Amino acid sequence: MNTDLIKNSPEKVVENLKAIVGEDWVTSDLSKMQRYLYDETESLLRPEACKDCVVVKPASPEEISKILKYANKELLPVVVRGGGTGVVAGAIPTQPSIILSIERLNKVVEFDEKNIMITMEAGATLAQLLEVLSKNGKLFFPVHPGDEGAQVGGMVAANAGGTRAVKHGIMRNHVKALEVVLATGEIVTLGGKLLKNNMGYDLLQLMIGGEGTLGVITKVTLRLYAASKYNGTLLVSFNSQREACDAVPEILQEGITPLAIEYMDRVICEESAKQLGTKWPAVKGSVDLMFILDYASEEDLYSNSEKLVEICERHNSVDSIIAETEKEQRHLLEIRSNAYGPYKNNIADIMDVAVPPSSVPDFFDDVKRLTKEYDNKIVSLGHIGDGNIHNFIMGDNGKLPANYEELKEAIYKTAIKYGGTITAEHGTGKLRKKHMPLQFSKREIEIMEGIKKVFDPNGILNQGDMVD
Amino acid sequence: MNTDLIKNSPEKVVENLKAIVGEDWVTSDLSKMQRYLYDETESLLRPEACKDCVVVKPASPEEISKILKYANKELLPVVVRGGGTGVVAGAIPTQPSIILSIERLNKVVEFDEKNIMITMEAGATLAQLLEVLSKNGKLFFPVHPGDEGAQVGGMVAANAGGTRAVKHGIMRNHVKALEVVLATGEIVTLGGKLLKNNMGYDLLQLMIGGEGTLGVITKVTLRLYAASKYNGTLLVSFNSQREACDAVPEILQEGITPLAIEYMDRVICEESAKQLGTKWPAVKGSVDLMFILDYASEEDLYSNSEKLVEICERHNSVDSIIAETEKEQRHLLEIRSNAYGPYKNNIADIMDVAVPPSSVPDFFDDVKRLTKEYDNKIVSLGHIGDGNIHNFIMGDNGKLPANYEELKEAIYKTAIKYGGTITAEHGTGKLRKKHMPLQFSKREIEIMEGIKKVFDPNGILNQGDMVD
Repeated sequence: MNTDLIKNSPEKVVENLKAIVGEDWVTSDLSKMQRYLYDETESLLRPEACKDCVVVKPASPEEISKILKYANKELLPVVVRGGGTGVVAGAIPTQPSIILSIERLNKVVEFDEKNIMITMEAGATLAQLLEVLSKNGKLFFPVHPGDEGAQVGGMVAANAGGTRAVKHGIMRNHVKALEVVLATGEIVTLGGKLLKNNMGYDLLQLMIGGEGTLGVITKVTLRLYAASKYNGTLLVSFNSQREACDAVPEILQEGITPLAIEYMDRVICEESAKQLGTKWPAVKGSVDLMFILDYASEEDLYSNSEKLVEICERHNSVDSIIAETEKEQRHLLEIRSNAYGPYKNNIADIMDVAVPPSSVPDFFDDVKRLTKEYDNKIVSLGHIGDGNIHNFIMGDNGKLPANYEELKEAIYKTAIKYGGTITAEHGTGKLRKKHMPLQFSKREIEIMEGIKKVFDPNGILNQGDMVD
Repeated sequence: MNTDLIKNSPEKVVENLKAIVGEDWVTSDLSKMQRYLYDETESLLRPEACKDCVVVKPASPEEISKILKYANKELLPVVVRGGGTGVVAGAIPTQPSIILSIERLNKVVEFDEKNIMITMEAGATLAQLLEVLSKNGKLFFPVHPGDEGAQVGGMVAANAGGTRAVKHGIMRNHVKALEVVLATGEIVTLGGKLLKNNMGYDLLQLMIGGEGTLGVITKVTLRLYAASKYNGTLLVSFNSQREACDAVPEILQEGITPLAIEYMDRVICEESAKQLGTKWPAVKGSVDLMFILDYASEEDLYSNSEKLVEICERHNSVDSIIAETEKEQRHLLEIRSNAYGPYKNNIADIMDVAVPPSSVPDFFDDVKRLTKEYDNKIVSLGHIGDGNIHNFIMGDNGKLPANYEELKEAIYKTAIKYGGTITAEHGTGKLRKKHMPLQFSKREIEIMEGIKKVFDPNGILNQGDMVD
């Protein structure tokens, strides 16, 4: 890579990029570049951003194509930047780079009610998508990774998950078509407004979850669904993690399929409520399951809620609270959403492993053991229907604990022992790249590197992420 | 490729393979090989099978690994054979080859009720899967490509679709883990019993729909779902294709989501019924939609059936028949299942295009025009909720019509004009490989070829299929 060119002669790079996108959309001025250097990666973990960068803001796939052709010609690293809501340092430039921001590709292109799909430019946000749906009132998009500032292109690149995967799956299940500028500059459309498509290898699937290492996503077509009219929230408390976990498969086998099944250590909810100046309504027990149910009819909502509570009682639940009014529901969700708040200033790392759902209780037992062994104050919550657990590893008075690397690796290895994965939804990025050999064989990594090379022979896109 | 070795010295190949799998499981005797030479490809279309082949029937991934290493060493083509139910000549050897049959890997490995998943060896059939579920009574697997002799490995390799995709999607949505012997001989497990997994590139997705060109699938883990307790079948008739088509998006937007929405030219059902010695119950109108609905409660079944009929009436349906008893339902389904029967002896090709669902009426108009222009008697049925239409191109007294290639290409181009695909569910195989440039750019095909080379550097697996 010719990083020297960007470092030593940024004015040359700026000039070439201005010729592509116009005077106003390129900068190497650090004061204007600041907000392009970091994403939401935990501050104790994030790598130092390289300041010798040039930010470019193209307005079209054609301009992006020209930028990538230029970068290939000069061998310049390119970091693709979406909404900056990632947590694995994918958008942090760690060497002199062109930062390619998608922010100007921000339009809703077509709300196609007949095909029950929506097409958006990749830089349009989840908030924009939700606004269109809210105006329409009848249709629904299920994936919600938490931050509505996420751009849809980024949500595809990261294969976003979130709380509703237990019922509706992840981003991969809903992406029907992508316009992509390939690393080599060609503009292609992968997929279509199609529910079935078996021609050739499905390159669309590699772009989903490819974390921007194979191409720059410029347009996204998503499938939508009929919105459910009735929803309710139930909070069920248990004395032990294992009892809470064991209720879940039975609920799913019964065909209840909640929109979300969230597990929470009680202490997290109490701390979150305290920070918000309120009280967590559950008192009995030590762990909680929060269920969100949504159905087309009120009868279904009530009968399924009843069945669900019965199943939990058979698994020794000690209390259940039904949030009937919208106000009560909002109260619970606000406290859940703030779960991270009280820990924010002293968090080292938010683990994101998944294990087979039936292995969650054993995994929890292992984490308890590790918590003692490594003298950390790990707390846990998770999307338990997916087997996706977030363990918060705590910092040591605002620093990474001395045994952080060992503890993290112990948690990763524990997940893998159960046939799990190091990252369920947050992604690989720069943070977890070095742990690939824990989960994959040499030949698998070699194949991933081979695929990267097929798409991006000069390795210009998102160097240091995923594979290269 | 060293096809001469197989052609001229089959005994050497047989000897080497016997050393791997044992005396009883290798043959080059044509009388024993006959049933391994063809699949279900239409007889007028299928390529001539090469008889200079050696059939080998390994019992384990380890044996398959050894066979592939031997094939790589000697540069011998390998054709992977599953249930032989494919229709695009994927399993037909067209040059001297090792035919690697998966039939002995035929066990149900684990029915995992807690994780609501099932693991089967790749050569186990859909019939075996359905038997396990029928004994259990509570769980359900949605994908059904029609022929229960299909092996689950083949269903994954072909990314099988079928009638229930409108509600449940295709194979890709349900495959959670695969054991695969890579083309280069390494045995790997891709994915896991995981509902979310974002570590590295998702190689699992390439194996799904990869048609056996990237590796040999030896074990499959599928997600299962709670079975719906109540189901019903509705037959609704219309005077025109367009009116029938236009009712569908409204039904889906209403959140009714039938298990299946099948479109049928009336003449197909009448011919099928006649062949079965019975009568198609619909008389009014000229086209039919058959809906299968399934719900957890009888109330939902009835209320949704009513809503569905009302929506169809708003779109000028002329009749609706509700099959209430199991006998009535079976009657309809038997006639639908036999749709192909009356045409079998004079069919040239079964098209398998998909277009965006809202473009189906225009696509139908175009096909009517082409039918006249090319003087063929095309009839059509399809999974209309998916935009997946099967047009039967008729033969000319048991031969391919003289203008077959042009007519086929005209239909492909029509589908592509609407943003469609040449093949929705049947796959690319040997039959459609040459049409890849109609749907893909040069760079896309180059990338697919590059991926093939990364997995299978010597190109030993399923030569002539998909890309090579």
